[in-house]
Amino acid sequence: MQSLENKIREVGKVLSPIVLKVDAFLNHQIDAALMKAVGEEFAARFSDVKATKILTLESSGIAPATMLGLVLGLPVIFARKRKSLTLSDNLLSATVHSFTKNVTSEISVSRDFLKAGDQVIIIDDFLANGEAVRGLLSVVEQADATAVGVGIVIEKGFQHGGKELREKGVRVESLAIVDSMDVDHITFRQQD
Amino acid sequence: MQSLENKIREVGKVLSPIVLKVDAFLNHQIDAALMKAVGEEFAARFSDVKATKILTLESSGIAPATMLGLVLGLPVIFARKRKSLTLSDNLLSATVHSFTKNVTSEISVSRDFLKAGDQVIIIDDFLANGEAVRGLLSVVEQADATAVGVGIVIEKGFQHGGKELREKGVRVESLAIVDSMDVDHITFRQQD
Repeated sequence: MQSLENKIREVGKVLSPIVLKVDAFLNHQIDAALMKAVGEEFAARFSDVKATKILTLESSGIAPATMLGLVLGLPVIFARKRKSLTLSDNLLSATVHSFTKNVTSEISVSRDFLKAGDQVIIIDDFLANGEAVRGLLSVVEQADATAVGVGIVIEKGFQHGGKELREKGVRVESLAIVDSMDVDHITFRQQD
Repeated sequence: MQSLENKIREVGKVLSPIVLKVDAFLNHQIDAALMKAVGEEFAARFSDVKATKILTLESSGIAPATMLGLVLGLPVIFARKRKSLTLSDNLLSATVHSFTKNVTSEISVSRDFLKAGDQVIIIDDFLANGEAVRGLLSVVEQADATAVGVGIVIEKGFQHGGKELREKGVRVESLAIVDSMDVDHITFRQQD
């Protein structure tokens, strides 16, 4: 997605060999117009699937997932990273380790919203080692629902998550795939 | 806002004298079309102010704030509840206690995005005791920016946050104000 790659080149900051900071439009400040375009691009890429729900993880997945929900007219569920007193015990949960934040969280989704038979598009901001997506796939499986695809805003193609998921037969659509990066230059994978 | 009040009556659950659970469209599952309407209503209510930024708090403020950002063409910043390794030390921060979750968090915003002179609309999902809004106001003040208004999706009018903020001269626009509630009935305040 050209406008997304342009934005990453323009305001992204490569902080280390594996950390790409995009706080300027995705993880702290949100460019709402770009998120709308991201939602439309996800809808185009998944135009051949019949989805019933969109599932993401708080917090940075919420804006792109909500824009996809708006285009497709589907409910958007965001998994919680901690249990809240206003969520009941009726939870599907999984453990997710974030290497970037070096923290392990339990993610949870209420059975009230994710149901057996649901056809789910999973959305997340980043795909690196694939930990978050694996947690969300586990939650979908526990619900006896089906993950029809995974939509990622930025995939770090030099880490192994995307490769492993695709080898397992998971359909992963990443709008920008970073194949290599350093302080001076970011190389994106060519996509059709 | 009639469509919002209808939705609250339809799917909201009164769990205790002070807890209104709206996980079905705002706090866990998101109704994207309703959030778009909420964003448009906020834009209409704040049509007389010249804002430069929108500020909210993860996670449930993100969807309505992003929709407002889309309508107004403004950047949306979401305050983080914990420090992340990919946020630098260049932070504005405040302490916020959530009575619903019974947890105290530090909220933080990068000085890279909230700047001196910014005219800020603060958005949040709920207003009860006003703790989150006070934290966000403190962050705005620390940045030498100005809060031009506070937009709330659901105000619990029987708690004191909204009253205290308005008495201090803060402009608070709440799209639905619950004056009283029990398991059988929710009464909304009449608004022009």
